[in-house]
Amino acid sequence: MNCSSLGIGLAGLGTVGSGVVLALERNSNLICDRTGGQVKLEVAKVLVRDVAKVRPVNLPIEKLTTSWQELVADPSVDIVVELIGGTTDAFDIVAAALKARKPVVTGNKALLAERGVELFALSKEHDTPIHFEAAVAGGIPIIKTVQESFIGNRIHSITGIINGTSNYILERMTTAGLEFPASLGEAQALGYAEADPALDVNGWDAAHKAILLATLAYGFPIDPAKVHVAGIEQVRPIDIDFATRLGYVVKLLAVVREHPDCSVELRVQPSFIPKSHILASVHGVFNAVAVHGDAAGESLFYGRGAGQDPTASSVVADLVEAARSLRQATGHRGFLPYRESGVLLPVEDTETAYYVRFDVTDRPGVIAEVARVLADAGIGISGTHSPVKPDQPDAEFLDMVFLLHTCRFGLLQDTLDKIEALDCINSKPVVFRIEKL
Amino acid sequence: MNCSSLGIGLAGLGTVGSGVVLALERNSNLICDRTGGQVKLEVAKVLVRDVAKVRPVNLPIEKLTTSWQELVADPSVDIVVELIGGTTDAFDIVAAALKARKPVVTGNKALLAERGVELFALSKEHDTPIHFEAAVAGGIPIIKTVQESFIGNRIHSITGIINGTSNYILERMTTAGLEFPASLGEAQALGYAEADPALDVNGWDAAHKAILLATLAYGFPIDPAKVHVAGIEQVRPIDIDFATRLGYVVKLLAVVREHPDCSVELRVQPSFIPKSHILASVHGVFNAVAVHGDAAGESLFYGRGAGQDPTASSVVADLVEAARSLRQATGHRGFLPYRESGVLLPVEDTETAYYVRFDVTDRPGVIAEVARVLADAGIGISGTHSPVKPDQPDAEFLDMVFLLHTCRFGLLQDTLDKIEALDCINSKPVVFRIEKL
Repeated sequence: MNCSSLGIGLAGLGTVGSGVVLALERNSNLICDRTGGQVKLEVAKVLVRDVAKVRPVNLPIEKLTTSWQELVADPSVDIVVELIGGTTDAFDIVAAALKARKPVVTGNKALLAERGVELFALSKEHDTPIHFEAAVAGGIPIIKTVQESFIGNRIHSITGIINGTSNYILERMTTAGLEFPASLGEAQALGYAEADPALDVNGWDAAHKAILLATLAYGFPIDPAKVHVAGIEQVRPIDIDFATRLGYVVKLLAVVREHPDCSVELRVQPSFIPKSHILASVHGVFNAVAVHGDAAGESLFYGRGAGQDPTASSVVADLVEAARSLRQATGHRGFLPYRESGVLLPVEDTETAYYVRFDVTDRPGVIAEVARVLADAGIGISGTHSPVKPDQPDAEFLDMVFLLHTCRFGLLQDTLDKIEALDCINSKPVVFRIEKL
Repeated sequence: MNCSSLGIGLAGLGTVGSGVVLALERNSNLICDRTGGQVKLEVAKVLVRDVAKVRPVNLPIEKLTTSWQELVADPSVDIVVELIGGTTDAFDIVAAALKARKPVVTGNKALLAERGVELFALSKEHDTPIHFEAAVAGGIPIIKTVQESFIGNRIHSITGIINGTSNYILERMTTAGLEFPASLGEAQALGYAEADPALDVNGWDAAHKAILLATLAYGFPIDPAKVHVAGIEQVRPIDIDFATRLGYVVKLLAVVREHPDCSVELRVQPSFIPKSHILASVHGVFNAVAVHGDAAGESLFYGRGAGQDPTASSVVADLVEAARSLRQATGHRGFLPYRESGVLLPVEDTETAYYVRFDVTDRPGVIAEVARVLADAGIGISGTHSPVKPDQPDAEFLDMVFLLHTCRFGLLQDTLDKIEALDCINSKPVVFRIEKL
């Protein structure tokens, strides 16, 4: 399809910025197809500190600049992506872009939590949107969910594990019995914590995100100074040990909750949560957010909360949204087909492992016979089971179960037809797939 | 705020239709606020079979009609919501609405899976959108997620439990050892299965949903006749029993997966999945969809897959989306503030249960002293623990843990100050909240 391009001005070419460039290189044709030819995105200009630095992404030098004013003003830049972090230069860039009526995409939670009121006033004044899916929980579309999908819901609560670094550190303290400094050191060595991990471990990264979610849910500006925030630096193995014994898991939890009098509770701290709760199963650097709405009920959104690709995924989704609004593409949304046809894999060609149960007449040699047919077909057996009661080891069995290695479903069907024809088999074999997930 | 109204033509006033009317009654002011005054939705006309029937929702009789032509043509109807089900009348209504350039919202998965190609061609021709979040997984915004949030992702797979009725029936067969007919009867008695449960238990409800998801992900029309679908009618307790022994759970699973040659695997059937996988924890009538994108990585979306309110939640979100496009509201999106201010609950007024650890000098009376201060403050104790080694029952303990009933955090703080002043307490008490989730 013939897509006319929109130019992106990318402020910041660090981990996420590079991820955006790579994602667009990889999938910009797909995006063009999926939008029915309405959106093609091209990196037009990139703000960097040092033009000469060698980078993992390939960009012509004339696209690089060290001046954010030049980036915002460049006529080939239609949309500005702010990924430099901080709340000073970043503020100036976003403000300038809005004034120039260039939509903004940002992943800067601190900027929006600290200075969002000013920026969204500018957004309104200049009728130019700020998109910020990447600011909360990386690749999980929680902003869109709260802002759009739950728009008809009064939101009772939002509870989340939204700092992967802390979650990783707490988990290692739990499983390996490490003290906080040792666990932090490990996370840094693995690249899960930054050289300056302050905002992650002191709870403020999570608090900034919770402030954004609460603002979306309840619609009033929240002063960060009034939010109760505690980090994980003070957590000690002894308390984790007690938690475990008592049936709890320690997680850095962000809690946003509306009370019957409409006041809003908002706090971030390490908390005990029941081991049986689904949030207790959020491991490592993953994030999860549980949202409770009056209509939708309980929902949970789980995924990668940080990292180059997941965060870039959200930035790119926002870029498409921004591009659509620039194109005034409000009517038809490309649903199908962007391809005339595709290949649906015939079920015979699908492959999984299998559970197969046979209704058999027990006599010596039954298993051998069945196993022989399977072997001739080249289908591997990972286990066989026949239900035998402990007190009747010599009773006849009627059911015989085989666990089979991954093979083509068509091959399995043909093979089972042969087995079904054996004398000792009394009815059609029962097959379940064993899914690799 | 002063919102001008858009009129909804509601075809069908069954469970979901009534839910939409109720949700709009409850939250239409909230929606108006959240959209910055751009969207107010009003039910203008309702298609019913029998005007005289007594209903749980209150609508003036002049808003009711038995003619869908009248509903679609009514000049006060700006958006048409199709909730009558089936693929014949429903098709005519949707087609007529698109031709009249009235955006359509539908929850009809069978209609879109069977006749979506025709309808989306009409949608494109008349530049009028069809919204269908309610068609897949009730209150879970999985359509928007795949269509918008993952637009920059090549989607590797979508795996889901997307039929709550089947999931409930299989779970009862597992936990209560019931045969399929008994478990189905129970589900019907509880209202989790319809009088005619065919589409739920034969896998086709899930298949229709999977077809929609696959079409969104891969962009080509899929012929339902070519999809491999098996239901749960043939599942027997003996196989569930084997699955349990082998470490698996049986779930009706929809699998959509792209192969390296770009062919697409799409199948629905009862499958064995590892007990440890997060999808195995999807209980009762809940739904969950796992999406794996090349950038976002593994994500999971969990919530209520059916029912009046969750499905209405998705219909209302689509209505707002449709209304926004009619209003050409593409720029600023109401982020904040729609209220000048709100009350952030002081942390002192928040309430949870607590874990408190004291560093103590062990001597007779320590526990009594601490317990007395707590009792005087009216704070209930649910447990006390002191770590004593089994072989040293008389060793002095240094740490003493109290589990406390829910109370105001401010009260707890004041009380802990008093306890800290006791001679036997050596340092500041350590507090963790125990969250009710």
